Amino acid sequence: MIGYAPSIQRLINALARLPGIGEKTATRLAMHILNSSTDEAENLAHSIIGVKKSIQFCSICFNLSDSDPCSICASSDRRTDEVCVVEEVNDLMALERSGFKGRYHVLHGALSPLQGIGPNDIRINELVERVKDGPVNEVILATNPNTQGEATALYISRLLKPLGAKITRIAFGIPMGGDLEYVDEVTMLRSIEGRREI
Amino acid sequence: MIGYAPSIQRLINALARLPGIGEKTATRLAMHILNSSTDEAENLAHSIIGVKKSIQFCSICFNLSDSDPCSICASSDRRTDEVCVVEEVNDLMALERSGFKGRYHVLHGALSPLQGIGPNDIRINELVERVKDGPVNEVILATNPNTQGEATALYISRLLKPLGAKITRIAFGIPMGGDLEYVDEVTMLRSIEGRREI
Repeated sequence: MIGYAPSIQRLINALARLPGIGEKTATRLAMHILNSSTDEAENLAHSIIGVKKSIQFCSICFNLSDSDPCSICASSDRRTDEVCVVEEVNDLMALERSGFKGRYHVLHGALSPLQGIGPNDIRINELVERVKDGPVNEVILATNPNTQGEATALYISRLLKPLGAKITRIAFGIPMGGDLEYVDEVTMLRSIEGRREI
Repeated sequence: MIGYAPSIQRLINALARLPGIGEKTATRLAMHILNSSTDEAENLAHSIIGVKKSIQFCSICFNLSDSDPCSICASSDRRTDEVCVVEEVNDLMALERSGFKGRYHVLHGALSPLQGIGPNDIRINELVERVKDGPVNEVILATNPNTQGEATALYISRLLKPLGAKITRIAFGIPMGGDLEYVDEVTMLRSIEGRREI
């Protein structure tokens, strides 16, 4: 049996290393790239090289950015005394879509003793320094509502409380448009615990 | 709202143009590329450029190949008088996996009047020339068992019959390991029509 030409096979292998892309999808993508224009293929290749070359961490919030500080930290429209702590850049983007107007701090991970991720492996020390240095009135902990995220939020709140800043956690409960009938019991409990007077 | 850094957004857009990759998957892939090593990202980028530069059609069978003729046509192990006609390179690979030891002819498409694909848009003329020129005893039509594939097989068989070569069509029926209970009626009919004495 003779397989694909070596350069096609090389591309299939490289694509199949991406998450969620198996060999069949990689083959389909490789064939699409082969059939697309040279311009389009080069645009994709140059985007890949470009992103590795130009992206760096913002020295203030550790967002991924082409510039330092990032466009959010550099913006004069933002409340600088409100820092929202997130695990990943994707979470930051989700908050941006909601219209949040403070600043961020990206941890790049969450505490996970089982995976050997401790406080020094994520950007917690940098957050503590930032709260010590700057005028930060409120730190909003927006880590994920799972074991690691909750542990990270608790750990950070204990570190920051002595510094005098107000520490808050985002609310968890029934999602808007959700159906009470199908809500799991943990979410329902959180929703009742977090009830507010109207 | 401030979005991803321009170079990340450019990569997301380029990835989202690939088939079956939406914006969410493209974002996940872009983040993976950002987090992977520079070597790995460059390998992917260079594979994309490499495949566009080095891949050409084999002048005999129109397989995609780094060399001309392709490794299958150049091999001395192959029966040169048996030509298996397929629609796409992927179909050729499926036949290779079965251990077929003849040669191929890749049409790069199938006749489809509705989509405006006529005999001159796919490699039918080249197949006719090949059968005329070379010692070809048997042409095996392995186009897909759908309207376009069947029409293409019929069209080619009518063109090639007068040239004296034996024209055959691959068998259609119940797949091995399949369950008769769940076989659709068209496949079942084909299976009965194609019955053989044992």
